[in-house]
Amino acid sequence: MAVLGPNRYGKAETRVVRVTRHGDAHRIKDLTVSTALSGDMAEVHLSGDNSAVLPTDSQKNTVFAFAKKHGVGAVEDFALLLARHFVDSQPAIRHARVAVEEHAWERNGAFGHSFVRSGREVRTCVAQHDGTRSWVVSGLRDLVVLNTTNSEFWGFAKDEYTTLPETRDRVLATAVDVSWRHADAESPQDWDKSYEKARAALLAAFADTYSLSLQQTLYAMGTRVLAECPGVCEVRLSLPNRHHFLVDLAPFGLPNDGEVFFAADRPYGLIEGTVLREDAPDAGPAWE
Amino acid sequence: MAVLGPNRYGKAETRVVRVTRHGDAHRIKDLTVSTALSGDMAEVHLSGDNSAVLPTDSQKNTVFAFAKKHGVGAVEDFALLLARHFVDSQPAIRHARVAVEEHAWERNGAFGHSFVRSGREVRTCVAQHDGTRSWVVSGLRDLVVLNTTNSEFWGFAKDEYTTLPETRDRVLATAVDVSWRHADAESPQDWDKSYEKARAALLAAFADTYSLSLQQTLYAMGTRVLAECPGVCEVRLSLPNRHHFLVDLAPFGLPNDGEVFFAADRPYGLIEGTVLREDAPDAGPAWE
Amino acid sequence: MAVLGPNRYGKAETRVVRVTRHGDAHRIKDLTVSTALSGDMAEVHLSGDNSAVLPTDSQKNTVFAFAKKHGVGAVEDFALLLARHFVDSQPAIRHARVAVEEHAWERNGAFGHSFVRSGREVRTCVAQHDGTRSWVVSGLRDLVVLNTTNSEFWGFAKDEYTTLPETRDRVLATAVDVSWRHADAESPQDWDKSYEKARAALLAAFADTYSLSLQQTLYAMGTRVLAECPGVCEVRLSLPNRHHFLVDLAPFGLPNDGEVFFAADRPYGLIEGTVLREDAPDAGPAWE
Amino acid sequence: MAVLGPNRYGKAETRVVRVTRHGDAHRIKDLTVSTALSGDMAEVHLSGDNSAVLPTDSQKNTVFAFAKKHGVGAVEDFALLLARHFVDSQPAIRHARVAVEEHAWERNGAFGHSFVRSGREVRTCVAQHDGTRSWVVSGLRDLVVLNTTNSEFWGFAKDEYTTLPETRDRVLATAVDVSWRHADAESPQDWDKSYEKARAALLAAFADTYSLSLQQTLYAMGTRVLAECPGVCEVRLSLPNRHHFLVDLAPFGLPNDGEVFFAADRPYGLIEGTVLREDAPDAGPAWE
Repeated sequence: MAVLGPNRYGKAETRVVRVTRHGDAHRIKDLTVSTALSGDMAEVHLSGDNSAVLPTDSQKNTVFAFAKKHGVGAVEDFALLLARHFVDSQPAIRHARVAVEEHAWERNGAFGHSFVRSGREVRTCVAQHDGTRSWVVSGLRDLVVLNTTNSEFWGFAKDEYTTLPETRDRVLATAVDVSWRHADAESPQDWDKSYEKARAALLAAFADTYSLSLQQTLYAMGTRVLAECPGVCEVRLSLPNRHHFLVDLAPFGLPNDGEVFFAADRPYGLIEGTVLREDAPDAGPAWE
Repeated sequence: MAVLGPNRYGKAETRVVRVTRHGDAHRIKDLTVSTALSGDMAEVHLSGDNSAVLPTDSQKNTVFAFAKKHGVGAVEDFALLLARHFVDSQPAIRHARVAVEEHAWERNGAFGHSFVRSGREVRTCVAQHDGTRSWVVSGLRDLVVLNTTNSEFWGFAKDEYTTLPETRDRVLATAVDVSWRHADAESPQDWDKSYEKARAALLAAFADTYSLSLQQTLYAMGTRVLAECPGVCEVRLSLPNRHHFLVDLAPFGLPNDGEVFFAADRPYGLIEGTVLREDAPDAGPAWE
Repeated sequence: MAVLGPNRYGKAETRVVRVTRHGDAHRIKDLTVSTALSGDMAEVHLSGDNSAVLPTDSQKNTVFAFAKKHGVGAVEDFALLLARHFVDSQPAIRHARVAVEEHAWERNGAFGHSFVRSGREVRTCVAQHDGTRSWVVSGLRDLVVLNTTNSEFWGFAKDEYTTLPETRDRVLATAVDVSWRHADAESPQDWDKSYEKARAALLAAFADTYSLSLQQTLYAMGTRVLAECPGVCEVRLSLPNRHHFLVDLAPFGLPNDGEVFFAADRPYGLIEGTVLREDAPDAGPAWE
Repeated sequence: MAVLGPNRYGKAETRVVRVTRHGDAHRIKDLTVSTALSGDMAEVHLSGDNSAVLPTDSQKNTVFAFAKKHGVGAVEDFALLLARHFVDSQPAIRHARVAVEEHAWERNGAFGHSFVRSGREVRTCVAQHDGTRSWVVSGLRDLVVLNTTNSEFWGFAKDEYTTLPETRDRVLATAVDVSWRHADAESPQDWDKSYEKARAALLAAFADTYSLSLQQTLYAMGTRVLAECPGVCEVRLSLPNRHHFLVDLAPFGLPNDGEVFFAADRPYGLIEGTVLREDAPDAGPAWE
């Protein structure tokens, strides 16, 4: 006998750009917003009765309307506002999850109306609300970093399929994909400041950790975020090892003392790990 | 006080092509394999002591060596073999997860040595092993389907942000991304036959369900797989609603009775749901 | 003194799906259409006077309206119709270029209204018209083919940077990107039949050419198209060499007699070449 | 009778990272290099005789070896060096084309060995050499810019398919893809300085041009580059119009005075144009 398990639905990747005009100095916020709702949805699955279903088109409209009505400040605030709205206004909706990605722009010179996409990492957040409680996870992705030295890899386990030589100096590069959970998602707080602190902590820890493995670097990055951001209780990192292989130039009579590297695409090592406070509150659905 | 939480590491996206030569009629299997191991990994994170770490490079080598030694039959068997190998041969490894994607090829005419990539969907599987138990999830992605009729959407909830008109006839299109869990991953079984049955069930249910919502279609697809595949106990579907908007041709004095559509990229509806047997065994880590 | 050189403008990548309903057996055509117009456009560049500029939005509308009014048969006919329309109806437009990509679908079982995207190669065409003459180039891309044998590579030039060993047996794989020019774009003709002939010729030549280099295979593919398609006067091929490297399994005590390959992403060889009839008419702007 | 037309071959997308270590302050250059050679290549196409063919693998090796031997300064110099090397050292090679893309990195804080990928635009160049003459085209792509005002679009041509309303204020956004040809590719020059000047000219012209059409902005950008860079004789721009549509919020009782926009993916306008000096020397093969 088949039964319906967990389910949700929503509008993915609504691209909204919000312009604020204060005299000649404009501001822009460039977001990709994805909403996902769940609740009393048995009937729509079983019989196609849509009476509990707020259309995904309406969800999209809400994103645009809220961008106008409430403006867009920190993405966490905007996501929370939307999540609470859907649960509070729709009787059948018991849980809302709103994911936002923010694309950074910089001013183009001194012009108040002209901008250049910065190409910095993408800032992310996921806010959830179930009518009573809220959860917020913040993060970033595509922050690509590289150390030309201070990275070793040796003393590893060896089996019959191991051919990798040990190294006392290598290039270490990764594209940081990280999320951090806030212990308290209910109280007003300065999300932007917290973001900049976490970002700075990640960059500093990547740079100043003398690395014996990417795992060690990962752990250092996670603990640094916890140290710098008191409101953060858990950090999850996914670090692809963007291999830079030293090119063998000996056939051409040339040394290669850490100077010329081949940047490989695939396969790549992938290191994933969590660092959390001992007393971190239960995550609930925060990571879903 | 920071502590280490869940973690794993491995080699992602090893691209292996295995050729088998029986006289002039060759066979090829084209796989992308990703391995992820976990176990007693505290020290590598805390101090950079790599003695428990089998390098991701060795994992990649193992994939290639196993493709030679054991050949590649059903991807589920290949993934299980690898998962068990890592846990059984490495004392520090307590759990292995091996994900395989298979890219389909067809024969190029009557030539035994020549092939054309079919462009069919990608077949997927994830096998896991913890030293005692195994779990297998099979699936596919990028199976793009479209119905030109037999799809309605009306009677939905309306709020102040709802402008979507009701429709009694629309194009319904999606790119099926689905995984199904096998109740028993230990016993030898015909994974390829099960795959073809599940695929056929998905296609048939998409076509013959008169749809009042994509959720209803999703549920029909899931229950059909359960009905056709006795060994499957749970199905998870993620169905983007690839909107095909009827173009308004009235300004040009033309009717458009379901004939000309604009295929939109973003945003898109995203419908996710699970269908499972009432007596499905506990999933354990199968979906991680 | 700066002057304006060649220029054009248009609407790129209009995604149009045309459904035709003959009783219960529907047909779909799924196209991506890009239009580009040029002509007396000095003023819009120099002063921003738009009086000669038919908006790209109107070009998009025309694509949709024509899909309704004229239906969509062979993509070449649809592209020519559009190209001629723009030049003939807009006084300032002297030249139109219309590029169409067709995405193939197959029937989903016996259902007249249900389709599966085939994943076959993308069919392409570019039609141009200047008020007097027309040009048509047809083609395809992403036709991925692989031979497991009958490919060698040896006897090549060697310099001080050459380390590649010669081989008498290798895997040869490529993603065919090819276009062919029709000598006569004015007369009505069966473009679909010509397409299927050219496609079949490319596949057959790839399979039955014993290859000493990818260049030789390229030339064989081009000449085969000319041999099979009398209306085609020139063929241009771009063939990435999708390297499949034999994995060295010797460290694991295993032979590898053409059985296990690593499919590399980058870098890749890229072989480009043209084959044409001795008496091919002048190409004019056909390849622009 | 089929004949061989224009052809070339080479190694595409060799990913090379060059590290220079001056004490603790390291430098990195991150390049993607594509080489393409042509010459006396009839035999390899006709009979598979490879004696004139320097393997693409050797070309890749040369890129790595030259990065070591000569270092990597301005990408134009590196590309020219390679192009001349291939023609000068291989008797069968009559023409070489070397394309380089440079990916920008910034320092990660004060650390001499740590870097962050900047996400700025990609810098490009194509150098060619035929044994006697050389050609250099420089450029960039993926420079995404947006003006929140000072852009209008009205007074355009209207036909029966025109529904676009005129506008006196719109968002104008594009991803600049531009190349500029140097009149003299033979003399030593400061390519980096020229690059920064051209980039600054493009950004300034985009910002300070009050735009009546994207064509007008394009022309202003091209002329500005010519004005600022005396060595540049021709500029080619390809500007996708990244449409930002004003969202209609009237159904929700909200005004939208240029505040909330939907950023669309496809279709998009595409404006292409050339600006050159009246006395620009013949381009020869520079743009091929």
